[in-house]
Amino acid sequence: MKGTTNSTMRAVVFDDHLRFDKAYPQPKRQSRWARICVHLAGVCNTDLEIIKGYMGFKGVPGHEFIGVVDQCDDPTWIGARVAGEINAACGRCRWCADGLMRHCPNRTVLGILQHHGCFADYVFLPVENLQRIPDDIPAERAVFIEPLSAACEILEQLDLQGDETAIVLGDGKLGILCAWVLSTVLADVTLKGHHAQKLASAQWRHIKTIRNADTMAGQADIVVEATGSAKGINEALSLCRPRGVIVLKSTVASVDEINLAPLVINEQTLIGSRCGQFKDGLQMMETYPDMPLERLITARFPIEQALLGFEQAALPDSLKILLEF
Amino acid sequence: MKGTTNSTMRAVVFDDHLRFDKAYPQPKRQSRWARICVHLAGVCNTDLEIIKGYMGFKGVPGHEFIGVVDQCDDPTWIGARVAGEINAACGRCRWCADGLMRHCPNRTVLGILQHHGCFADYVFLPVENLQRIPDDIPAERAVFIEPLSAACEILEQLDLQGDETAIVLGDGKLGILCAWVLSTVLADVTLKGHHAQKLASAQWRHIKTIRNADTMAGQADIVVEATGSAKGINEALSLCRPRGVIVLKSTVASVDEINLAPLVINEQTLIGSRCGQFKDGLQMMETYPDMPLERLITARFPIEQALLGFEQAALPDSLKILLEF
Repeated sequence: MKGTTNSTMRAVVFDDHLRFDKAYPQPKRQSRWARICVHLAGVCNTDLEIIKGYMGFKGVPGHEFIGVVDQCDDPTWIGARVAGEINAACGRCRWCADGLMRHCPNRTVLGILQHHGCFADYVFLPVENLQRIPDDIPAERAVFIEPLSAACEILEQLDLQGDETAIVLGDGKLGILCAWVLSTVLADVTLKGHHAQKLASAQWRHIKTIRNADTMAGQADIVVEATGSAKGINEALSLCRPRGVIVLKSTVASVDEINLAPLVINEQTLIGSRCGQFKDGLQMMETYPDMPLERLITARFPIEQALLGFEQAALPDSLKILLEF
Repeated sequence: MKGTTNSTMRAVVFDDHLRFDKAYPQPKRQSRWARICVHLAGVCNTDLEIIKGYMGFKGVPGHEFIGVVDQCDDPTWIGARVAGEINAACGRCRWCADGLMRHCPNRTVLGILQHHGCFADYVFLPVENLQRIPDDIPAERAVFIEPLSAACEILEQLDLQGDETAIVLGDGKLGILCAWVLSTVLADVTLKGHHAQKLASAQWRHIKTIRNADTMAGQADIVVEATGSAKGINEALSLCRPRGVIVLKSTVASVDEINLAPLVINEQTLIGSRCGQFKDGLQMMETYPDMPLERLITARFPIEQALLGFEQAALPDSLKILLEF
């Protein structure tokens, strides 16, 4: 049931602690922004970091969703089934002019930086951020567009030839998505993790899954770090060949003890990689309808039970937790 | 005076502590290697790290030198005035086949890894490592060929267009050399340091020197980190623009508290950069005879006084300390 008045909504809220609010004040819709009625939302590891203090965020978290536009100045958007890119840019700076809105220094970020997120009945975004989702893509696939696009960002940043060997560290959601995306262009992709069940879920195409990579030291052309730990970064440096590339996918709230001497000695390149473009994630979904996105869903919780969903999401064997409206 | 017998030599030795030995056993010259009579050697920050335990090295440190070949199977080298590249490669692996001998996994490294260095009457290197030094380059310039080549490595790794803005962090020897090298291809180069005298020594061409870079956050296309500290790395991440490049030039023995979240958020690239090719350093020296290399010499010590030289090298206001034979 949607919020009981026109000016409130059900929402998950983080201020000093995480709570469910059945009548949270709705943000005011800005000119050229849309109000989207949220149907399904996904809990990301960034959300788990946020409730530990990452980015100092206060408000409604959440940035993975699919929903339907119900208010917008432009009537062609009303009723559209959409997801939305999470960086709301200023549209006036050099970054925006270069098409890199997701690096606009004046941006807000949905559910992460000065922008109420999607764990609520309604979410608000500039129309430029909206991505129409074709009707033939079910919601439980479409809701993965944000993390899948983030995985696709690796393909935009690296100029892959196809014959490179890649190791992905971390059998969480993002690690698995990165392995899947890499397997569409590389013949040799290995996913290293610690959880038997997650590694089983990760099986797709020719991906090899392993629990120990000690024998592969110094071999990989590309290592994707998706564990979010200092240990993972140090291991990535060790697995990567001299002059190879390490892609750092996970942001963490903490400052870690990292030994960067190997990076210098081996002249490796460490690339930070964050959000991708939804058009790329959508194209990946459409090109590979057999990509087993649904397999990553551990459980669904109604929005009223979101706090239990967060607890479940934090358990080591959980993959994606969805919140239903 | 050279070592008193044919089988010993004067040498600086690090085992549990640093000491001068007037009759240290000479290493045996291997087939296809040259024995070089050392004339002048330079103390590098890596040497200062080594005597704190970096790389677990034991033996004769030192890897910056100029000298004259006095033993070699190939008679054309006898009497040649040379410097020598520091990585002694196996010549058989894929790295050697690709011309990247300095990344050969089987290599020894002069004065750093299983290879006695040049702080001794004699140093031993494969003939492939030797670089002839023209007679018109004085020894006190030629002795900078190793760190100057390391600075030139940045030009090999980055595809610079000329209009990029660059900030170099650290007014030590390597930082200054990096700024000088960058100033030969970039119009906008800033060196940030803390020492008035070093910053004065760094003046060359159009380089700007500053002591505080707070107003430049997020601006630089390229940041070269040459302070060797975690603070420097964190500052480099902060000064670099989104999608910019940070070049990490210094290896340090310690594991540091580094916050890599900004690297991911801003999708920056961190490139480790180590040794360069001596042909590049030599060409730089010949193309820019006005590059004030001699200005970086703080003091010269006779080899017998090398321990005092190490002490002087560790002082905050010191730049290059030379050891004379």
